[in-house]
Amino acid sequence: MPEAVELIRAKRDGRALADAEIRGLIEGYTAGQIAHEQMSALLMAIYFRGLNAAELRAWTAAMVSSGERLDLSPVAAPTVDKHSTGGVGDKVSLILVPLVAACGAAVPQLSGRGLGHTGGTLDKMESIPGWRAFLPPGQMLAALADAGCVICAAGPGLAPADQRLYALRDVTATVESIPLIASSIMSKKIAEGTSALVLDVKVGSGAFLTRLDDARRLARTMVQLGAEHGVPTSALLTSMDTPLGRAVGNAVEVQEAVAVLSGDTEQYADLCEVTLALAREMLALAGIDADPAAALADGRALDRFRRMVRAQGGDPDAPLRPARHLEVVPARRSGVVRRLDARAVGVATWRLGAGRARKEDPVDHAAGIRCLVKPGEPVAEGQPVLELRTDDPRRCPAALAALEDAVEIGPQPPEPVPLVLERIGP
Amino acid sequence: MPEAVELIRAKRDGRALADAEIRGLIEGYTAGQIAHEQMSALLMAIYFRGLNAAELRAWTAAMVSSGERLDLSPVAAPTVDKHSTGGVGDKVSLILVPLVAACGAAVPQLSGRGLGHTGGTLDKMESIPGWRAFLPPGQMLAALADAGCVICAAGPGLAPADQRLYALRDVTATVESIPLIASSIMSKKIAEGTSALVLDVKVGSGAFLTRLDDARRLARTMVQLGAEHGVPTSALLTSMDTPLGRAVGNAVEVQEAVAVLSGDTEQYADLCEVTLALAREMLALAGIDADPAAALADGRALDRFRRMVRAQGGDPDAPLRPARHLEVVPARRSGVVRRLDARAVGVATWRLGAGRARKEDPVDHAAGIRCLVKPGEPVAEGQPVLELRTDDPRRCPAALAALEDAVEIGPQPPEPVPLVLERIGP
Repeated sequence: MPEAVELIRAKRDGRALADAEIRGLIEGYTAGQIAHEQMSALLMAIYFRGLNAAELRAWTAAMVSSGERLDLSPVAAPTVDKHSTGGVGDKVSLILVPLVAACGAAVPQLSGRGLGHTGGTLDKMESIPGWRAFLPPGQMLAALADAGCVICAAGPGLAPADQRLYALRDVTATVESIPLIASSIMSKKIAEGTSALVLDVKVGSGAFLTRLDDARRLARTMVQLGAEHGVPTSALLTSMDTPLGRAVGNAVEVQEAVAVLSGDTEQYADLCEVTLALAREMLALAGIDADPAAALADGRALDRFRRMVRAQGGDPDAPLRPARHLEVVPARRSGVVRRLDARAVGVATWRLGAGRARKEDPVDHAAGIRCLVKPGEPVAEGQPVLELRTDDPRRCPAALAALEDAVEIGPQPPEPVPLVLERIGP
Repeated sequence: MPEAVELIRAKRDGRALADAEIRGLIEGYTAGQIAHEQMSALLMAIYFRGLNAAELRAWTAAMVSSGERLDLSPVAAPTVDKHSTGGVGDKVSLILVPLVAACGAAVPQLSGRGLGHTGGTLDKMESIPGWRAFLPPGQMLAALADAGCVICAAGPGLAPADQRLYALRDVTATVESIPLIASSIMSKKIAEGTSALVLDVKVGSGAFLTRLDDARRLARTMVQLGAEHGVPTSALLTSMDTPLGRAVGNAVEVQEAVAVLSGDTEQYADLCEVTLALAREMLALAGIDADPAAALADGRALDRFRRMVRAQGGDPDAPLRPARHLEVVPARRSGVVRRLDARAVGVATWRLGAGRARKEDPVDHAAGIRCLVKPGEPVAEGQPVLELRTDDPRRCPAALAALEDAVEIGPQPPEPVPLVLERIGP
């Protein structure tokens, strides 16, 4: 194999790398034989030059091969998982995972923590007293057999090359690259061992990708990667201009998810619509003919959620600790809410302490924002529109600053916009 | 100042960095506070996005400020230096530096070693028994006062940021960037303390830049940087499609330089033409009205060369050690030499041991190639056209392979091409 510097130069100059060269780079970097500074220069060159389909397939395969691939063959039910690119108020997994399990599939979700203004599913679940994110593989299989579903953290043996590369990308401004994002997500999901996968690619102000064509390109890239690795994959592009549901944070999102699982669906119509659309995709890929709306309405999904929480040491009946400080944002005028900006709410929630700036930071599980009104709803001047929760009131001014232009109120309701924008399938 | 990752992102996205941000990056990297992997990602982003004039001025100034700037005010004569971007058979400095000193200027040349297929002036000078590249500043001033000129190595205190950055660029494929090359060259020359500077920007197969427009862009960038830092600078773009003179290597180039200094100018017409053109530029910038051709012809330049060698411990009369092994390449047909490819001869010389693949490698001072015929000269089939010299005959096959298509012989002489292609001045 040529020296690393020659391969960086080739990529820099727009030449494609061969399978063996890519394998050598990923293996060499994982083994510490290729220096961080060489890999980061290569990643920046990839940011500018991209990876073609063959390079991306090899890159992803090398990341999968860098660690173990879970064997889910002992699970009797067909396995299917979901991944979201991250949104504000995106507690979909908390409802969807037990819901799809209630319909007869097995959902082995390995999830992540939040970084930046979108939260992480594990951070939300950790609001539940006693609940533990880490499960040894044997316990994961037992939880899957019992509840039909599990949400847990990926161990260090799963796609370690991706874990190493992600940490490097994070400090070198090479996160925002479609092929690098696609290979990072797909390598973890392929290594997880699921038989099929549905992607929720968020697009809008509160999402990582704000443009529909970028989201479409990422979705197509991941759907193709799934097919190439024998994991049938489809994607829904869903709107993320407004927070999903009414709660943004950790404990507040768990409470909302439990409310929906308990049948309180009316005031969370957007959240239910996205969740049910993803559930139908997952059941179709799993080859299961079932009505997820019925499983949500009759309490079967809630039952699975409670079993899943218990299997990981959590108490589903324990009250979640409230925040020590509350503060409301009143409406500046009367009218109809025309816009509630997802990014502003996400950033404000983050500043209240619900998210982290660095991987090693703790999160405040009680911190969050409740959206008391949503677009299309009427509001009177002075009526509270947002409720901020935090343990540290000194965080409020910065959060309020982020919310300065978050709420737009006008005389006319906004044009209705679809939530599910597009489906990209095999 | 924003965090390094934010500055990398800004540059990646094509935004200009502020003076203070650039200063912070260079100072932080020199102090070891900014990680290699962050700097290499930034360098790759600069490779793709470039630096605008203000950024480049700040970048260069920060590199100069990272170390000491030599104080040449004790030198009575006007100081002027030359820098070449590197060519094959480019022993110009060995003649030019004492020649310009003989005309009344002081030439404080801090020079470098060769890496890749073009040689380094210090490697050539070190063929001379006893000669030492390193001089403490006091001895450098004494040598300048005595001989009027010095060729020595830059100490570690001179633009240390550039030394650190160059080593990083070398392993991350970020050498080939016009603003990074320009700032690297100019920061060293500005720190060296010369009052004026002439650049020999080589263009052609044997040069680092093969395209005239790239060479022109680099020259203009450096001329502007010189002016901005109070160092009047001009540049000649000179052709590097054919090796300069007839010797390529280390000791063989010293011998050729001494031959020219001794009045043997006829068979080295190209070398003399380039040297005299650069000498006239340097004398003009130094405000000295003198005829360098006369100083070359009457032995005054040779006298300066001998004093310069002695000032650094060298014996100008000591014989240079010959190579242990000689091998010739015969002409394949009779006719006129139409082309003698500089790059091929440079690579072959390098493979014979005259150059180094890594900074820490030693060089073979006896290794080299003598071009026995040059373009425009007649040749008979079987007549030796190239003479290879090395201490290690096992190196010959690889050198001969590089020379496969180096010599083109035809019935007609080639069109004459100018050596000095363009002048770019203040």
